[in-house]
Amino acid sequence: MDGGEYSISVTVLRLGHRLVRDERTSTHLGLVARAFGARELIISGKDDETAESIRRISERWGGDFTVSFSSNWRNTLKNWRKETRGPIIHLTMYGEVLDKTLPELWTMNAGAVKPREILVIVGGEKVPGEIYKLADLNVSIGNQPHSEVAALAVFLDRIYRGKELYNNYRGAKVRVVPDSRRKEIVNLSN
Amino acid sequence: MDGGEYSISVTVLRLGHRLVRDERTSTHLGLVARAFGARELIISGKDDETAESIRRISERWGGDFTVSFSSNWRNTLKNWRKETRGPIIHLTMYGEVLDKTLPELWTMNAGAVKPREILVIVGGEKVPGEIYKLADLNVSIGNQPHSEVAALAVFLDRIYRGKELYNNYRGAKVRVVPDSRRKEIVNLSN
Repeated sequence: MDGGEYSISVTVLRLGHRLVRDERTSTHLGLVARAFGARELIISGKDDETAESIRRISERWGGDFTVSFSSNWRNTLKNWRKETRGPIIHLTMYGEVLDKTLPELWTMNAGAVKPREILVIVGGEKVPGEIYKLADLNVSIGNQPHSEVAALAVFLDRIYRGKELYNNYRGAKVRVVPDSRRKEIVNLSN
Repeated sequence: MDGGEYSISVTVLRLGHRLVRDERTSTHLGLVARAFGARELIISGKDDETAESIRRISERWGGDFTVSFSSNWRNTLKNWRKETRGPIIHLTMYGEVLDKTLPELWTMNAGAVKPREILVIVGGEKVPGEIYKLADLNVSIGNQPHSEVAALAVFLDRIYRGKELYNNYRGAKVRVVPDSRRKEIVNLSN
């Protein structure tokens, strides 16, 4: 998977990462972002093992996915606007129905100076109220409580229309041989 | 959402639930199962707060989703077979490509004595090797490492073809008014 092969480049901003308590969920979020075709994860909060464990997996499984930390998500959003990198989408159970917002998203995206870039904000349990206004669109993946990890996966799956899931990742050291009966991995480093 | 409205009834078996460490991930799994149209979650492991927190949310948001614990997943699988309730699907990154297995799944399901029931096994990091043989199909949601929560969400989304996400849940006390600009909840108990 290389960002350039996609028509749309997605950056994920993970809000509300609290040390230790959120390490596992944030790691899942990062791996989902990578496996479902996003290019980059920015974690708002203090640096911990999360970035490193995602990087270790990326190195083994290939691709150009990047992870960084932001100590100030307001600045991250401001810089995104300044660079006019495309619409800011907030995934939330209170947002507008996904299938209704997708057509609007394509239109907004086409108008951006650097077109075909999207920032997806994924919160934890408590999201500051101002996020709803700072985002261009608040989008729901169902209006029921569930999981930010699932929300991100389904959003990216719809954005890329399911084509992202079985990409070849450049520089991978291992690759799975898909099999309905057994577990098989091929070592590519030799 | 009521199971009866669906053409297929899905039960999720969560393997490898370890106390405390997995509470949050298992809760996310349960909420995803409910929000994406499954009927039931069975957690293999010792009872803890997980079931209760999923039940609390179900009570507030409605529907007939049930949660239970199993102290012996082998027995759970045996009983499922004895009752011939339909195919057993193991979600794993090593499995066969999702879109290739779905047609096979429909055929298997049509042949079951109690047709239109599926057991979906979702593991944690370590899954016993015998699961690959006990399952009728090992299915991958991408052959990259990511998250069992995301895998379950995308699997159910494909099974129900995206129709599950905005159901009305019987007996709900609250309901979200989907909005792209703000957060709005309606209280239905009055």
